[in-house]
Amino acid sequence: MSATSDLFSKLLVQPDFFPRLPQQKRLYEVAKVSIHLGQLSAGSKLPSSRELARDLGMARNTVIAAFEQLMAEGYVTSAQGSGTYVANLTELKLAAQVMPAPLASEVPGAETTLLSRRGAHITAFGAGERFEIFPFVPADDDFSSFPFKVWQRLQNRVWRDIHPDLLDYGRAGGYLPLRQAIAEYVAASRSVKATAHNILITSGTQQSLDLCAQLLADVGDTAWVEDPCYWGARRVFEACDLNLHPITVDGEGMALKPADLACDPRLIYVTPSHQYPTGAIMSLARRRELLDVAVRKNAWILEDDYDSEFRYTGRPLASLQGLDKDERVVYLGTFSKVLYPGIKVGYMVVPAALADAFKSALYDLQRPGQLMVQAALADFISLGHFATHIRKIRQIYGSRRELLRKTLAGEFGSQLNQQVRISHEESGLHLLIEVPDHVDDVALEKLAAESGIEVRALSAYYLSLPVRRGLLVGYAYVTPDKIVYYGKILASVIQSGLS
Amino acid sequence: MSATSDLFSKLLVQPDFFPRLPQQKRLYEVAKVSIHLGQLSAGSKLPSSRELARDLGMARNTVIAAFEQLMAEGYVTSAQGSGTYVANLTELKLAAQVMPAPLASEVPGAETTLLSRRGAHITAFGAGERFEIFPFVPADDDFSSFPFKVWQRLQNRVWRDIHPDLLDYGRAGGYLPLRQAIAEYVAASRSVKATAHNILITSGTQQSLDLCAQLLADVGDTAWVEDPCYWGARRVFEACDLNLHPITVDGEGMALKPADLACDPRLIYVTPSHQYPTGAIMSLARRRELLDVAVRKNAWILEDDYDSEFRYTGRPLASLQGLDKDERVVYLGTFSKVLYPGIKVGYMVVPAALADAFKSALYDLQRPGQLMVQAALADFISLGHFATHIRKIRQIYGSRRELLRKTLAGEFGSQLNQQVRISHEESGLHLLIEVPDHVDDVALEKLAAESGIEVRALSAYYLSLPVRRGLLVGYAYVTPDKIVYYGKILASVIQSGLS
Repeated sequence: MSATSDLFSKLLVQPDFFPRLPQQKRLYEVAKVSIHLGQLSAGSKLPSSRELARDLGMARNTVIAAFEQLMAEGYVTSAQGSGTYVANLTELKLAAQVMPAPLASEVPGAETTLLSRRGAHITAFGAGERFEIFPFVPADDDFSSFPFKVWQRLQNRVWRDIHPDLLDYGRAGGYLPLRQAIAEYVAASRSVKATAHNILITSGTQQSLDLCAQLLADVGDTAWVEDPCYWGARRVFEACDLNLHPITVDGEGMALKPADLACDPRLIYVTPSHQYPTGAIMSLARRRELLDVAVRKNAWILEDDYDSEFRYTGRPLASLQGLDKDERVVYLGTFSKVLYPGIKVGYMVVPAALADAFKSALYDLQRPGQLMVQAALADFISLGHFATHIRKIRQIYGSRRELLRKTLAGEFGSQLNQQVRISHEESGLHLLIEVPDHVDDVALEKLAAESGIEVRALSAYYLSLPVRRGLLVGYAYVTPDKIVYYGKILASVIQSGLS
Repeated sequence: MSATSDLFSKLLVQPDFFPRLPQQKRLYEVAKVSIHLGQLSAGSKLPSSRELARDLGMARNTVIAAFEQLMAEGYVTSAQGSGTYVANLTELKLAAQVMPAPLASEVPGAETTLLSRRGAHITAFGAGERFEIFPFVPADDDFSSFPFKVWQRLQNRVWRDIHPDLLDYGRAGGYLPLRQAIAEYVAASRSVKATAHNILITSGTQQSLDLCAQLLADVGDTAWVEDPCYWGARRVFEACDLNLHPITVDGEGMALKPADLACDPRLIYVTPSHQYPTGAIMSLARRRELLDVAVRKNAWILEDDYDSEFRYTGRPLASLQGLDKDERVVYLGTFSKVLYPGIKVGYMVVPAALADAFKSALYDLQRPGQLMVQAALADFISLGHFATHIRKIRQIYGSRRELLRKTLAGEFGSQLNQQVRISHEESGLHLLIEVPDHVDDVALEKLAAESGIEVRALSAYYLSLPVRRGLLVGYAYVTPDKIVYYGKILASVIQSGLS
C-alpha cells in the first residue's frame, strides 16, 4: 500500500470526516485537505486510480470521478500517459476553496479563458451572495421601521435650496458637515478619536477596503484575516493581489499563535466588536496585544465596525482605534446597516498622517460624488433622527433576536447546549447556531433551502482547517410571525441533520 | 568631456528644449529625458557635479540642485561617497512623470514611508484634479440648465411608492428598467449592440474601469493607452499594477506603429469618439485596424464614450462596439456629463460571454446599490426628459463653445493658425488651444492661474516624448458674459507666453 493510500485511508476512517457524503466526494475532500495541509506536496505523484481503488476498497469509477473534480479545480494536473501530480497551490491561490468546495459543474467553464487569472478566481465560485447572510425567510425585506417620510423631506430640502457644489464630485473627502457629524457620533458611541479632517466619506465599506488595500499594501503583501472571515473583505484583498494569512478566531476574537507571528503582515483586518460571522467580541487583552503587534510589525489594522450599533444590552467595549496610541488603526463604518443597504454611504477614520493621501486617492480612483445624499444624511443626524432611529431598530431587532432564540430553544428542547448551541452575545443582525463538528453544515444549508429558508453554513467562511460547523441566521428584517413559523421549520431541518 | 556631459550639452543647445526655464530646471529636464529614452541606462554612473558644472558651463550649485531634484523623484540614487547612479525606471514606474514633473517640494515626504509603493505612486503628485479640465472660470459651476424640479418630482415618486427591493444592493447588475432604457438609448444614438442582459450599471466610469482591469488583466499585464491619456484611467490601471504602453495620438486618434505591435496588450483603452484630451476623432480605417489587432492579440478594447452626447453638428461615427463582430469591446458610458457629476451613475456594455462574471464581481467587489436613483433615472429617460435635456444643453454648450472660439480668435487676430491653433472639431465640453512646441505650456497654465483662470497644460497628459503643447479650456459650465470677459484675459496670457 502506497504512503498516499495509507494517508487517505487513515483520514477516511475518521468519524467526523464528512460521514454522510458519497464516497467520491469524501475521497475528493480527503485529497484536497491533504494537499492544503502539505501532506501531499506540490509535484508529488498520486497513485494510479487502479491502485487507489484497490487500497481504499472503492470502485475505480469513484476514484476517477474524484480525480476529475480535483483536476477541474486545479488541485492536480495530469501529463498524458504519465500520471497525476499535485499542483502548486501558491500559484493557484486556492486558499478560498479549502472547505466545502463547489462542484466542478458549478464553475463557469467558458468564461475562465476570457478572464484574467484574478478575474477567474474572483468569479469562479459564484457571487458573494452565497456568503451573505440574508433574512432567513426570503420575501420582501422588512425595512418598514425606516422613517421614509422624514428622509424624503430632508432630501427635498437639499434639492430645493440647491448649491452647485453639491452636484459635483467633491474633492474634500466628503461633505464637511457630514464628516463633522460622524466625528461626533463615533467619538461618543465608539470612543473613536476623530476630527472632520481625518474622516473620509466613501460609497461603502467595499470602497473603503479597496482604498486601504491599494494605498497601504503592494502586490504579494500579506494581509492577516480572521478565520472565519467576512467574504467581502477577502474578495477585495484577492482582487488587489494580496496574500491572505488566516488566523483562527475563538471566543475572544482573533487568536494569534506563535506561528502567525512568523508571517509579517502589512494589513490586519479585524471585526473586533462583533466578529463576522461568529459574533465573538475581542477581549481587551487581545486588543492590546494586536495593537502591540501592529506597531512591532509596522502593519496597519483595519477595524471594520460594521454593526456595532446593534448592541442590545450593556455597553460595548471601546473601539480598537480608541485604544490605539500609535496611529496604526484605520476605522471603517457604514450607514448600510442602520439606514438601508442601497444608500451606499460609508466612512473611514484614518490616521492624520494618511488623511491627505487618502483624500487624493479617493478622488482620483473613485470619484466620490453623492453629496446631495450626504447633505440629507448630515441633516438626518444633526436633527436627531439618526439617534432616534437607532434606538427604535435596536429595540425591534433585539426583540426579534430574542423571539427567534426562544422559538428555536423550544423546539430543540433537551438537545440545546448538548448537540446544538445558540450564540448568546447580545448584538448583531444574525444568530449563529452551532452544531457538532461531524455534521455537514453545507448539507444543512441545502436542506433548509428546500424548505424555503435561507441560511449560511459557518464552515464555508473558513480559509483553513479545522472549521467549526453551524448555521448563520439573519433575523433583523423578518417580521415576528414569520420568525415563529419558519423558526420551527428551521429547527426541524437541523434536527434531521443531527440524527 | 564625458559622454554624459556631451549628451547633455547637445540636448541643452536644442532651441525647443524649454528655453525659458531656469538652468537648474533645464538640466533636470535634460537628465530626465535622457534616462527615459534609455540614453542613460539604469545603473550607469553620472559625472560628478564638479565635472558637469565645468563641462556645461554652469554654476556647481545649479548642478547640485538639479541632482537633488532627480534624487528626490527617484531618477537617480547615490551611495555615500561613491557617486550618483541612474535608477531602475521599470521598478520605479516613473512613466507618469515623463513630462512637466512637479517640484520635489510638492511631494509629500512624510507620507511615502507610510504608504505602499503603489499608494505612494498614486498619491505622490497630488490629486488628479491637477489633470481635470474644470470650467476655466472657477466660480459656481453653472448647472442651471438641469431640470431640477422634474428630477425632484421623479425622485419623490420613487420614494412614495417604495419597494423594499430598491433599498437593497441589487444583485442583477442594476435596475432592470434602467438597463433596458440604456440599451435602447445606446443602440439608437451610438449603434451599440446591447440588451439589458449585457448592460451593468456602475457608480461611474472609474468603477467600470476598475472592474475591467481586475477581471480582464493580471498584475504586470500591459494596457495600451492613448498618449496623451485620460488621467483617471491611467490611475486605475496603475492601482491595479498594469504596465502602461503609451501609443501616440494624431488627428485620426490612436496611431499604431510597428513597434507598438511588438508589445502584446491585454487591454486597449481608447476614447475614439472624442479623444481625451486632444479631441481627435478616430477614423473608420483606424477603428477597423484596432478591432483587427484586438482579435489577433486576444486583447480587450475598452471604449470610453465619455462625452459623445456633445456633438454639435453632423452625426457622429458609430461606436467601435457597433463595428465589432468579434465581441472584443467593452463599451463605457456615464451620466455624469449629461446630468450632473455627483450623480455617480455610469454603465458598461460587456460582451455577452462576460456578463455573468461581471455582474458577480460587481456585486462582490463594489456592492452597487443606489437603486432609488436608478429608478428615478429610468423614469427620466423613458418619459423623454433625458432626450429633451440633451437637446437643450447641446444647444447651450455649442453656443458657448462658439462664443469662446470667436472671442479668442478676435484677440489673436493674425496670430491665429500661425502661432496658435484652436481645435475645430464640433464636440465635447472643452476646447484645445495649441501653441508651438517650444512654448512651455505648464508655465502658461501657471500664468493663467495668476489671473484667476483655470486651464490645463496639454503636455502634462503625455506619458512619453515627444509632446504637443497647448491649453485645455473647459467652457461648458461657464456663463456667456464670463466667457467673453475671461476669454480675452486668457488670450492675452497666451500672447504673453508666445512673445
